[in-house]
Amino acid sequence: MSFRYLEDFIIGERKESGWFDLTEEESVAFARRYDPQPMHIDREAAAHGPLQGLTASGWQTTAIVMRLIIEAQPFGSTPVLGLGVDEVRWPTPLRPGDSIRAEIEVLSTTPSKSKPEFGVMRIQITARNQRGEVVLKMIPNLWIPRRPKEP
Amino acid sequence: MSFRYLEDFIIGERKESGWFDLTEEESVAFARRYDPQPMHIDREAAAHGPLQGLTASGWQTTAIVMRLIIEAQPFGSTPVLGLGVDEVRWPTPLRPGDSIRAEIEVLSTTPSKSKPEFGVMRIQITARNQRGEVVLKMIPNLWIPRRPKEP
Repeated sequence: MSFRYLEDFIIGERKESGWFDLTEEESVAFARRYDPQPMHIDREAAAHGPLQGLTASGWQTTAIVMRLIIEAQPFGSTPVLGLGVDEVRWPTPLRPGDSIRAEIEVLSTTPSKSKPEFGVMRIQITARNQRGEVVLKMIPNLWIPRRPKEP
Repeated sequence: MSFRYLEDFIIGERKESGWFDLTEEESVAFARRYDPQPMHIDREAAAHGPLQGLTASGWQTTAIVMRLIIEAQPFGSTPVLGLGVDEVRWPTPLRPGDSIRAEIEVLSTTPSKSKPEFGVMRIQITARNQRGEVVLKMIPNLWIPRRPKEP
């Protein structure tokens, strides 16, 4: 697996992850612990709610996508530090029984002014279910080493 | 518990949650499933890494804060739909053995132009550990009903 510096990433390059299958058991267990709202944990109440059935916690969706990205290794062996994430959106809810995959696209690479051996890479993450509906979009900012200058 | 309309929230009003204690068992179990990186799951590797010890997945931090907010009920009985979250930041890592609490502050309330019976409320969430260090900041956008007009 190759080490990639900031200079090695190309604006617009994309990588797709594999799939993750979400069971109702895992979805409800996560929500009971971290997001105990009827729409996530109570099948009966969820069926009569505005989303007409159980949905996963949006924070489980982000967590699943994290795993898919780690498995896809879009950054090679480069150590990547997440500085933060902008514009997290869940246009369609993820539901128990759904499968989900993520796509990563490089938006920009910007050398740091204060630390010239590093830079910030912004990436667009778009995750879709098995019907192609977008279940998560977000823009992480990553801290990436720059290629060392020749002496 | 009172129902609060968009008009009932005051810019700058704050509410603090209770505490959540994160065990190493829960931290490592979450990371093994969703964020299997050495800094989160391998005590030995983490001790020699840049953060000098195990840290929780940042997505577990967001999930824990979700639970703290649900328990704190800052919105009364008002049904709240999350439209998305901006500017997610983890200035200090959350670690196994830490306790965490969250503070919610109302930043703005803006009536919707297209759907006059609703509006968008932006809130600042700041979560701190037991030493007062900020472990999470983020700005959710919430969809809140407006007070019905008198006939």
